[in-house]
Amino acid sequence: MPELRKGPLVGRWVIVAPERGRRPSDFRVEAAPEVQPKEGCPFCPGNEHLTPPEVYRVPGPGGGWRVRVVPNKFPALSDYPALDPAPQGPFLRLNGVGAHEVVIDSPDHAHDLDGLSQEQVELVVEAWVHRLRALGERFHYVQLFRNHGGGSGASLSHPHSQIIATPLVPPEVEGRLKAALEHWRRHGTCVVCTLIEKELSSGVRVVEASERFLVLTPYDSRFPFELSIVPRFHSHDFRSMNPKDRAAFAATLRRTLARIKRLLGDIPYNLCLQTSPTPKGDWPGLPVWYHWQLELLPRLTRPGGFEWGTGIYINPMPPEEAARHLREVVRGG
Amino acid sequence: MPELRKGPLVGRWVIVAPERGRRPSDFRVEAAPEVQPKEGCPFCPGNEHLTPPEVYRVPGPGGGWRVRVVPNKFPALSDYPALDPAPQGPFLRLNGVGAHEVVIDSPDHAHDLDGLSQEQVELVVEAWVHRLRALGERFHYVQLFRNHGGGSGASLSHPHSQIIATPLVPPEVEGRLKAALEHWRRHGTCVVCTLIEKELSSGVRVVEASERFLVLTPYDSRFPFELSIVPRFHSHDFRSMNPKDRAAFAATLRRTLARIKRLLGDIPYNLCLQTSPTPKGDWPGLPVWYHWQLELLPRLTRPGGFEWGTGIYINPMPPEEAARHLREVVRGG
Repeated sequence: MPELRKGPLVGRWVIVAPERGRRPSDFRVEAAPEVQPKEGCPFCPGNEHLTPPEVYRVPGPGGGWRVRVVPNKFPALSDYPALDPAPQGPFLRLNGVGAHEVVIDSPDHAHDLDGLSQEQVELVVEAWVHRLRALGERFHYVQLFRNHGGGSGASLSHPHSQIIATPLVPPEVEGRLKAALEHWRRHGTCVVCTLIEKELSSGVRVVEASERFLVLTPYDSRFPFELSIVPRFHSHDFRSMNPKDRAAFAATLRRTLARIKRLLGDIPYNLCLQTSPTPKGDWPGLPVWYHWQLELLPRLTRPGGFEWGTGIYINPMPPEEAARHLREVVRGG
Repeated sequence: MPELRKGPLVGRWVIVAPERGRRPSDFRVEAAPEVQPKEGCPFCPGNEHLTPPEVYRVPGPGGGWRVRVVPNKFPALSDYPALDPAPQGPFLRLNGVGAHEVVIDSPDHAHDLDGLSQEQVELVVEAWVHRLRALGERFHYVQLFRNHGGGSGASLSHPHSQIIATPLVPPEVEGRLKAALEHWRRHGTCVVCTLIEKELSSGVRVVEASERFLVLTPYDSRFPFELSIVPRFHSHDFRSMNPKDRAAFAATLRRTLARIKRLLGDIPYNLCLQTSPTPKGDWPGLPVWYHWQLELLPRLTRPGGFEWGTGIYINPMPPEEAARHLREVVRGG
């Protein structure tokens, strides 16, 4: 059974989630090959029986489906009745209460989001919003993320995203909430709205500015070619997008992934949504001062001992230069 | 020129350190092959001219050397006269003031620390202590770390460690200092001394307990088979070890690496030293309530979108089980 742990030396939370008794020898090699064959892929049509029963489905032609959401077979957090906090001396342990789902992009085994139709990506975004809303009713935070390619943490290559609902507001999110709230108290403005204004006026880190969304390389990028997709309109919660915004967001995401691939090839990357905690998260006034964004983290460098030891990242590619390269990419298709 | 940056959305510091104008195509593939040939290795005897002039040397037979310390050719932080803080709107920028050195274990291109003699590893530990002391006179914190093997962040395979001196106490270290100080204020004891007592009495996470050092799998391990080497005597600073303790520490480190390799093979790993900031770091009373340790992080799993988004790590190997496997390893030699 998964559990949440906190030790006395560092403020971090860790999820210990044993996967059916893996033995030391199972750790000797990297878990996943770069590209897996369609045969036996649990996310391909015809193999639906290999996943737990689906929680969301967009029906497709001929009794098939266009998007499926299923519980993760090896959940990091799961459906336990209660947290049952158990402090044992200096240690704190909670039951691994939460949820862990997989959003399967499409029946297509081989194509990432930028290779799917605009309509299909809109269906994916709609599925994200739907599941974030549903899980948000029961948990403090819901993390949407995507691991693409060998080296990204992905263990299955059929394109998919994942959603983990947590029984607490995660430390990384809490840090952002605190920074945004402090900015609000000092300046009376949303920190991201202020940032957007500055970035548009300097332009050096702007990759793309469409009517509704801004794509930029963050000033404090941890990784080469790190990107952020931010709504230009003030909005604290990804879930609150209307269908028109969702369509514009889907188009921006497709274009951005296409840019990355044109420039760098089919590299491993992570997507992490940073959005509002749920009402259970309890931050008064939050809709006024918080602002969601989607982070795209190419995994071209690997954090090493310095990063683990200090929490400071070394990035060999200045974000201003990365933005220039990404702007200059000419899009085909 | 490297610079330190802080943005308005997250509390993090990032070092932007362009390496001689790498272009996007240089990022298309992983930087380093798993094992590099001896030919052209800048850390091998005969190629000393390929590194910057050395700052420390243990002479060896025939005019050679046994340990060398040299400045990093592509430093993450370097010798600038001043930080020159430059707030630009919501952004804070500092010159990349600091130092970055490489400690070359030995002339041996192929053998990791556990494959070297006890005497040689003692010389390496002495070099660490010496450089940590020297750099500690000028900077707020000095981070000793080691990236071993492909996937660890290492870019050269000749066994070596690195030292980066920073002009501020890094956030990860600050978090630990705060936790230790809070424990001291509440309980009047060193949090690590308390932890050692608990761990010895339960025994479930103890891998090895010798007279001077304890090797354990932390309760809140982020990675499978994560380990910590902690002095059983109270000591806030790695630099303060006497020669007898240094010898015992070297022996513990060799044995621990040998255990890992017996169980898991020659896997990628990081070492991170967590020790006291320098007097410039300014934490009153610190010698009484802080306690150093060396962390060993096997890199068998890769952080993905969930970890980057939340700061919460998912570990599929319970530390109690990891400790049992590591205890059971029978050591040869």
